[in-house]
Amino acid sequence: MVRIYGDCLSGNCYKLKLVTELLGTPHAWKFVTWIDGGTKTDDFLARVNPAGKVPVLETSKGEMIPESGAALYYLARDSHLWPVGETDRAQVLRWMFFEQYSHEPFIAVSHSLKKRAAPSPETAAKLAELHPGGVRALETMEQHLSSNDWFVAGAPTIADISLYPYTSWAPSAGFDLSAYPEVHKWLGRVERLLGFVSMEDAIAQTTPA
Amino acid sequence: MVRIYGDCLSGNCYKLKLVTELLGTPHAWKFVTWIDGGTKTDDFLARVNPAGKVPVLETSKGEMIPESGAALYYLARDSHLWPVGETDRAQVLRWMFFEQYSHEPFIAVSHSLKKRAAPSPETAAKLAELHPGGVRALETMEQHLSSNDWFVAGAPTIADISLYPYTSWAPSAGFDLSAYPEVHKWLGRVERLLGFVSMEDAIAQTTPA
Repeated sequence: MVRIYGDCLSGNCYKLKLVTELLGTPHAWKFVTWIDGGTKTDDFLARVNPAGKVPVLETSKGEMIPESGAALYYLARDSHLWPVGETDRAQVLRWMFFEQYSHEPFIAVSHSLKKRAAPSPETAAKLAELHPGGVRALETMEQHLSSNDWFVAGAPTIADISLYPYTSWAPSAGFDLSAYPEVHKWLGRVERLLGFVSMEDAIAQTTPA
Repeated sequence: MVRIYGDCLSGNCYKLKLVTELLGTPHAWKFVTWIDGGTKTDDFLARVNPAGKVPVLETSKGEMIPESGAALYYLARDSHLWPVGETDRAQVLRWMFFEQYSHEPFIAVSHSLKKRAAPSPETAAKLAELHPGGVRALETMEQHLSSNDWFVAGAPTIADISLYPYTSWAPSAGFDLSAYPEVHKWLGRVERLLGFVSMEDAIAQTTPA
């Protein structure tokens, strides 16, 4: 059985919860969060991830796989969420790299600032600096989804799983999704997948009481 | 035959040149650079990459694969640079996502600021803000390489190709590699691979006269 280190407060961790629920993958969840310093303990750095971040997937043989994208690949590699064709596989990775480089640093970071930073001129300036990048990411998604129901191969893949969490947070990160109707419809398609679990339910299922 | 859109002035494009040379992959190079607006033309956005970025790999069937990591996967998928084991493959992706999220935004962006931005208090402040992230990335690499010659599976993979370009630029981005002797030795190992092409030679081979 695989074990996942993380907290579903982070979209990157929630991605792993989503894929295990969609695939029905037996797994144990080990709650670790940066909020109380859990990702920076000597034990975590030495044994789990020297980079001091979650999520980390531990395979049944005890090997640690940090980085949500790598863990998604490992969990989905024999499933319908990782397509068969090599070009389709490359396109799945294309959208996963897009999410980490051109989407998450703008939309997720804006969300985090709005949620956790004290309102101040500096916070407002940082949000204004991040906004155009988030708009570009949503425009790129909107354009692709205007002729595609899913990101790759006409069916759900880990590209969709990767893009879902932080896109679904875009409204509370300061991005009005009514400007992106195709993105809005795609979010609904993801939410209707059999096994889908909401962030709230994922948090409830993985956070110690 | 595949075609690559890009310029070897960018480390992300240089990665693709490196892997084609290491593998002896027949390819055509189509010089496109953001510097003269080539990545924002109507034709490029409509036909090559709506995100307006290079590199982009065009397969022999004319499908476009943006994102260097996705293109590296496609080019290397049947070669020794993409290992056979599923855990090793996940570890390759782990280091490729690490490079794009935790390395490139600090070291490559610092390099670009030092090379292109006018010296100013704002530039100095931005460089100071980026520095700790670059140090963390190099420390993570140093720790891993202290007990590994290569990033995954004891042999070169596209994880090494992905990490090489911007790491080799670290000194001119303001990071002193003498503090990271294992990283320094690993750079030399990459440079001694059969088929290795330097950035300078890659630029000379791909830039129109």
